[in-house]
Amino acid sequence: MSEPVESTQNFVDAVDQEALFDALVHQLRFDDRGLIPVVTQDARTGEVLMMAWADAEAVARTITRREGTYWSRSRGELWVKGATSGHVQKVRTVLVDCDADTVLYLVEQSGAACHTGNRTCFFRELTADGIRNDEES
Amino acid sequence: MSEPVESTQNFVDAVDQEALFDALVHQLRFDDRGLIPVVTQDARTGEVLMMAWADAEAVARTITRREGTYWSRSRGELWVKGATSGHVQKVRTVLVDCDADTVLYLVEQSGAACHTGNRTCFFRELTADGIRNDEES
Repeated sequence: MSEPVESTQNFVDAVDQEALFDALVHQLRFDDRGLIPVVTQDARTGEVLMMAWADAEAVARTITRREGTYWSRSRGELWVKGATSGHVQKVRTVLVDCDADTVLYLVEQSGAACHTGNRTCFFRELTADGIRNDEES
Repeated sequence: MSEPVESTQNFVDAVDQEALFDALVHQLRFDDRGLIPVVTQDARTGEVLMMAWADAEAVARTITRREGTYWSRSRGELWVKGATSGHVQKVRTVLVDCDADTVLYLVEQSGAACHTGNRTCFFRELTADGIRNDEES
């Protein structure tokens, strides 16, 4: 009697995911909360879209599923970007910096990255007078 | 008897710097260490060069002197990028994100931003096998 194909695939995926998770925990430098900062850049325009945090599971999911995934510090849970808004991030490349304590997601952003409706979260300039409020949208 | 011009200018600069410092402390959301993450992007190429931290003084100096300035967590001191290496950053624009807890410096980078000699600190890809080491330089 042969195993159903689907459950074999799930088993393989689970093993790969575990190996990747272990590699990330050893190779990346997470802080004392188990988090690493993530910079997210639009792969097409080069715009820096947002900065957020990820735990090892979020980085592993981002690499394997190619969906921008983070750790929400306010909600205390895994956060797949766009899961509720539909503004998902298709991840082309994941880079890591020289001392392995910051990650960069290069993404194809659907819609606005920012919850304000702006394409990028960085839509305000900081001047000698403080924050200049000139929202795009 | 008139005041020497230079000392009057220093006084004005000091007042402006103090006002800016106060504005930043009230408008930006520094963490419990008094720091804020800074993403630094090449204003010409769009490359994300590095991610570091700044305190209010470092952000104020960056805005007024237009030199990329940070807080070195390892050395526990203000860090003017390139002060020793010569790889200075001329700052064109400083942006702040929607919730005012991350800053973005848009800079003209002299030489390499990374201490490894790579132009950017993000020169390694993170794949399903972990960090892929293919340094540019």
